Amino acid sequence: MLDQFKIILSHTTHPGNIGATARAMKVMGLSKLTLVNPSKYPSAEATERASKASDILVSAEICTNMHDAIADCRLVVGASVRTRTLPNRLVTPRELVSVIKEDPQNTPVAILFGTESSGLTNDELHLCHYQVYIPTNPEYSSLNLASAVQLISYEMRLAFSKMQQLPEARVSENEQVISREQLDGLLQHFEQVMSATGYLNPDHRKQLDNRMSRLLSKATITESENRLLRGFLSSIEHKLV
Amino acid sequence: MLDQFKIILSHTTHPGNIGATARAMKVMGLSKLTLVNPSKYPSAEATERASKASDILVSAEICTNMHDAIADCRLVVGASVRTRTLPNRLVTPRELVSVIKEDPQNTPVAILFGTESSGLTNDELHLCHYQVYIPTNPEYSSLNLASAVQLISYEMRLAFSKMQQLPEARVSENEQVISREQLDGLLQHFEQVMSATGYLNPDHRKQLDNRMSRLLSKATITESENRLLRGFLSSIEHKLV
Repeated sequence: MLDQFKIILSHTTHPGNIGATARAMKVMGLSKLTLVNPSKYPSAEATERASKASDILVSAEICTNMHDAIADCRLVVGASVRTRTLPNRLVTPRELVSVIKEDPQNTPVAILFGTESSGLTNDELHLCHYQVYIPTNPEYSSLNLASAVQLISYEMRLAFSKMQQLPEARVSENEQVISREQLDGLLQHFEQVMSATGYLNPDHRKQLDNRMSRLLSKATITESENRLLRGFLSSIEHKLV
Repeated sequence: MLDQFKIILSHTTHPGNIGATARAMKVMGLSKLTLVNPSKYPSAEATERASKASDILVSAEICTNMHDAIADCRLVVGASVRTRTLPNRLVTPRELVSVIKEDPQNTPVAILFGTESSGLTNDELHLCHYQVYIPTNPEYSSLNLASAVQLISYEMRLAFSKMQQLPEARVSENEQVISREQLDGLLQHFEQVMSATGYLNPDHRKQLDNRMSRLLSKATITESENRLLRGFLSSIEHKLV
């Protein structure tokens, strides 16, 4: 089960932090690392800090945008020490364990970490089903990037290291949450129809996009719900012709 | 309650790790750091890695031996990623929370971390009531010193940050575990009597010392038990004269 977690670092500034993240992951048995537009990479400093976890760097996936990084993931979680005002569903790492255990068929799980200085962008948070918040000292919450990965990987290890396989699906495939790629397809379909009906104001396209993305993420749309919505959207398109 | 925890680093080699430890502690609201014979300290590198947690370095206690460092502590816990063959009672960080919650009057609690390369020495482990073991990947358990402090501080924060004060003692003072200083006094008393009776072989003094220290640590001797044993030892001495 631990190989169902993808740690995704977005726009990391210091390559040392990428190496330290690889080490933090491997110590807890996680292995899948994705880097979205790292500032300096590959880097000797990253390899040095990774110590004997450099195999994770070697097999790391490098992406130029977050959408590609999470395309195959069914659950997308944004890590942040700050609680934003965004209405993402907020969980602690331990509550995240419960969320995953409740529907273990919704894998792979992506856990997103933003840049060192400012964390995840609002655009990135809009892609998340959940936001995971590590409880820290309110007077000093400056948790190092690799430390945050360490704490979350630790919770995942405690909860999932003995779960060798997914438990037999308690629900049919219809009830599986759709992948991010499918969600993007659904979003595009909405946009297309909203454009066709004139609802979409091209000047505010980005804003509406974000709001829809957040809404559909929070809804954890299943395969069958996706088909329902797609069918509905197609029916509108058909009428408009 | 979080200020009842003392993080004690023994013979730390790299000053950067001391700084990173201070930061890891402060993020979780811990503040009491003790350094036993650090290799290079004070150090600009430690201060730099501490970031805005340098106040913890400023107020850190520096000791030349572990006995002084834990003298006032009632519960002494050794941190290790390895499970030694020593018969210390072994707990995970989460189980340690239960141990502390069960008898919250046994504070301060010392948590000992050994040198980076080899961890706590056997002599240091003999001083511990418990050994805390962080679950890691058996194929790669090389947890960084500051990461280990981070994980344990995180568990303590989750469990104790809202516990502003000790709950009212459920037991009388008689049932409080004695401090390490009292335990050392008791040990000395045993030695004295063992010496007087001829049981103590001066050539194996150190070995017997360690075994007795471990035995009495595991027993979590209370104030009243201490008086009982002391009385017993005195009665022997009296008879021997």
